[in-house]
Amino acid sequence: MAVSKFAYVKSFEQPDSLLPNTYIVVRVDGHAFHRLSQDHQFIRPNDDRALQLMDHAAKDVMKEFTDIVMAFGESDEYSFLFRKTSTAHKRRHAKILSIVTSTFTSSYAFHWSKYLPNTPLQYPPTFDARVVLYPSAKEIRDYFSWRQSDTHVNNLYNTIFWALVQQAGETTSRAHEILKGTVSKQKNEMLYSRFGINYNDLPLRYRKGTTLVREKATSENTLDGREKPSSEVVVLHCDIIKDEFWDGRRHLLE
Amino acid sequence: MAVSKFAYVKSFEQPDSLLPNTYIVVRVDGHAFHRLSQDHQFIRPNDDRALQLMDHAAKDVMKEFTDIVMAFGESDEYSFLFRKTSTAHKRRHAKILSIVTSTFTSSYAFHWSKYLPNTPLQYPPTFDARVVLYPSAKEIRDYFSWRQSDTHVNNLYNTIFWALVQQAGETTSRAHEILKGTVSKQKNEMLYSRFGINYNDLPLRYRKGTTLVREKATSENTLDGREKPSSEVVVLHCDIIKDEFWDGRRHLLE
Amino acid sequence: MAVSKFAYVKSFEQPDSLLPNTYIVVRVDGHAFHRLSQDHQFIRPNDDRALQLMDHAAKDVMKEFTDIVMAFGESDEYSFLFRKTSTAHKRRHAKILSIVTSTFTSSYAFHWSKYLPNTPLQYPPTFDARVVLYPSAKEIRDYFSWRQSDTHVNNLYNTIFWALVQQAGETTSRAHEILKGTVSKQKNEMLYSRFGINYNDLPLRYRKGTTLVREKATSENTLDGREKPSSEVVVLHCDIIKDEFWDGRRHLLE
Amino acid sequence: MAVSKFAYVKSFEQPDSLLPNTYIVVRVDGHAFHRLSQDHQFIRPNDDRALQLMDHAAKDVMKEFTDIVMAFGESDEYSFLFRKTSTAHKRRHAKILSIVTSTFTSSYAFHWSKYLPNTPLQYPPTFDARVVLYPSAKEIRDYFSWRQSDTHVNNLYNTIFWALVQQAGETTSRAHEILKGTVSKQKNEMLYSRFGINYNDLPLRYRKGTTLVREKATSENTLDGREKPSSEVVVLHCDIIKDEFWDGRRHLLE
Repeated sequence: MAVSKFAYVKSFEQPDSLLPNTYIVVRVDGHAFHRLSQDHQFIRPNDDRALQLMDHAAKDVMKEFTDIVMAFGESDEYSFLFRKTSTAHKRRHAKILSIVTSTFTSSYAFHWSKYLPNTPLQYPPTFDARVVLYPSAKEIRDYFSWRQSDTHVNNLYNTIFWALVQQAGETTSRAHEILKGTVSKQKNEMLYSRFGINYNDLPLRYRKGTTLVREKATSENTLDGREKPSSEVVVLHCDIIKDEFWDGRRHLLE
Repeated sequence: MAVSKFAYVKSFEQPDSLLPNTYIVVRVDGHAFHRLSQDHQFIRPNDDRALQLMDHAAKDVMKEFTDIVMAFGESDEYSFLFRKTSTAHKRRHAKILSIVTSTFTSSYAFHWSKYLPNTPLQYPPTFDARVVLYPSAKEIRDYFSWRQSDTHVNNLYNTIFWALVQQAGETTSRAHEILKGTVSKQKNEMLYSRFGINYNDLPLRYRKGTTLVREKATSENTLDGREKPSSEVVVLHCDIIKDEFWDGRRHLLE
Repeated sequence: MAVSKFAYVKSFEQPDSLLPNTYIVVRVDGHAFHRLSQDHQFIRPNDDRALQLMDHAAKDVMKEFTDIVMAFGESDEYSFLFRKTSTAHKRRHAKILSIVTSTFTSSYAFHWSKYLPNTPLQYPPTFDARVVLYPSAKEIRDYFSWRQSDTHVNNLYNTIFWALVQQAGETTSRAHEILKGTVSKQKNEMLYSRFGINYNDLPLRYRKGTTLVREKATSENTLDGREKPSSEVVVLHCDIIKDEFWDGRRHLLE
Repeated sequence: MAVSKFAYVKSFEQPDSLLPNTYIVVRVDGHAFHRLSQDHQFIRPNDDRALQLMDHAAKDVMKEFTDIVMAFGESDEYSFLFRKTSTAHKRRHAKILSIVTSTFTSSYAFHWSKYLPNTPLQYPPTFDARVVLYPSAKEIRDYFSWRQSDTHVNNLYNTIFWALVQQAGETTSRAHEILKGTVSKQKNEMLYSRFGINYNDLPLRYRKGTTLVREKATSENTLDGREKPSSEVVVLHCDIIKDEFWDGRRHLLE
């Protein structure tokens, strides 16, 4: 029964530290969420309750990892940015990936009933995740621009799609057909002319996703009068593609 | 707002397929479970309810991944064995690691109230996980022997430790001191002479952990009389170090 | 000038040990050898001198790495098989890859004049290389079968191709055209009917490539009469696809 | 003999592209060069002929890879810096590592007789090599500072060590003993007081190593008068730790 006799199998575990001084992005995605959203009657095209639950789970991840300086969420996905100098869990890939995934999932399941009190969770929701490394600030800017422009494209499509289905009574396959090949401008016009919806009047949350930022606040003074640095996570629904967002938050990219 | 302009950042995602034809073991571990078990008054040294909840979560992982042929659990950890020919998620490391972690975590949180109905879950429980590859059947045998001999060593220690604390009224630090440097034989004797406990009479679950095995059952016949192969997961608490367990289940190692 | 101030850059070197207990295959390939063979008037379709030089370089690699139990060469490539338990250079990927490549290259350049004494080497010949891991003996068998069947296919093609060019006076592009779409049987027949060559009469070296095997010989006795185990590398030109080769050399796959 | 039946073994080759937009450094080191330098009577502490041969080999590597913008050599090692946007060989790790190693080795063996015409090469010289990635310009500066400060430390030690042996007639072990625990200042003083050598009068090559830089020259005009950009590799023996070197060559770090 000697443990030591078999412990050599541990030598098959391979080191997996991520390259130092590189931005770490972890992106969490809903796994089989198409079915989950149907089984739990999510409101289309956007369900505020479900989106706020995602934000709650993301904030819990940022509590677990204080080296995450920013996160961006849309639909059933969330991206987390670790400061490039982070040495959390010695930058071990599996540790970071699994704990982010587990914390997000667990928080989502745990807090479900707060956000959807009348819709009991029928089975455990799951997510997958991946880690991506970026060497420079420019790529991080472009990464978040990529996700937010994706938010826009998806939301515009979903808004007109569900208007066609819910308000015009089209079948889903007919709605897809109508939209096939249309460009943004045509979708905007159709939205306005057929449904009286001005896309730009839609809530910022739907059009811009949710950005969580760890602000460097100096909110407390210690007993001897020195400022004690602290940080808090702020929820935003704003443009993160243009410079403005980043110019005022240089600490995010160091 | 063009997604395409920023989509190059996707090229930083690196391929991560695991070496083909190699056994994949994923080990899930409770993260900060010392605190969780205290905050929720887990029974010492073994809490049947919590152990059964672990088993439930593990079974859900085996439902999600039909290529997992076996799992072994003890305390707050569970190891999963994928058949070596598995091509689940194209053997992509991050997919497998994150979905196993997420499914296990989510199931654990979701089913908590079934197993500990009088102990409300106070916050989201989390797990970390890792993937290890093994090229040959011998190493898989040794891997599970490693975990089960660890179960034995821990359980013997914990049994006498908590007997000293709960029955003999020792402090925890005093109990550690008493046990320092003792070998198995001495612990067994102390257990019997001071507390009248015969270690071998303890439940198999505590001494051997839980083994989940996907048995190849041929339980159903199709309408035209042909046998339809199916599989079911069986729960065992038995020795998995000796040959007997494996001799009767050659399909586990193929 | 303190070295220590800058030595942190060493922490960016990442561990790269190859999975234990797995067969390591290193395949070395001529880099830009089409040009080299033309510039040095290699005899077509096979140049014995150049092939023997390749064998010499491969033997030098096997002297450097006693854990290489076998090698197979054809044309401008050579594959080396490390025993699966090898711990050469702690199984570090870059060490193994670079030293195999360097030893092979250096030996090739150094011994050139022995094999092609009348053809001065005009510039440094270069090779590239890769490392591949295989978990089981079956894959190693299939790996060498893959390379040897490739030898056959290439040699048959080259033999008839160069007969068309050298003996029938076709241009190289016309020769390619003639052979386009032909199967082995047709090539064999054309070789016999047009050029009186019976493919099976060609030297084994051309048809089967070169196999280097480290035989376990017990050739020497020590002074006190005990046998001193030694090993020697044997050069073969034989079939390595069928069982016969392997049945007599079980030590190669352990 | 079907190749296709065995070709599945190719699927075990794993993708190995290096993270995009990251500086690639390849460092080549003499393998067993202590013996090689003894067997070929290299002059101590520095052998100009051998150092120039190293430079020649390095220049050949820079001819093979036009994406290498800079290299630094000392003793029996050479470091190569690829521009961070390089896509040479699709940034495949094994390709880059093996071709750099092979080119360097081959050139060293091939050109040996030009630099040491009276010292026939007795056996093939070999090198090992490794690849290291650096995300930012600062680390590249520090990397080369690390190597050049190492050059200084080694050269100072070797200069006084060999003076003790060659001029003062000490044994090598006695010379090591004398130097044990001495700091730079003491070594400098001993060098001057005992041997009349002013360290700073030693050739720059010995004290600063060799830096190869790809300068962006615009040396040629095409027939229609437009400038045709070209590049040439310049050999320097200068300080690369201070800003001056880098300020005038911003293209190296882009």
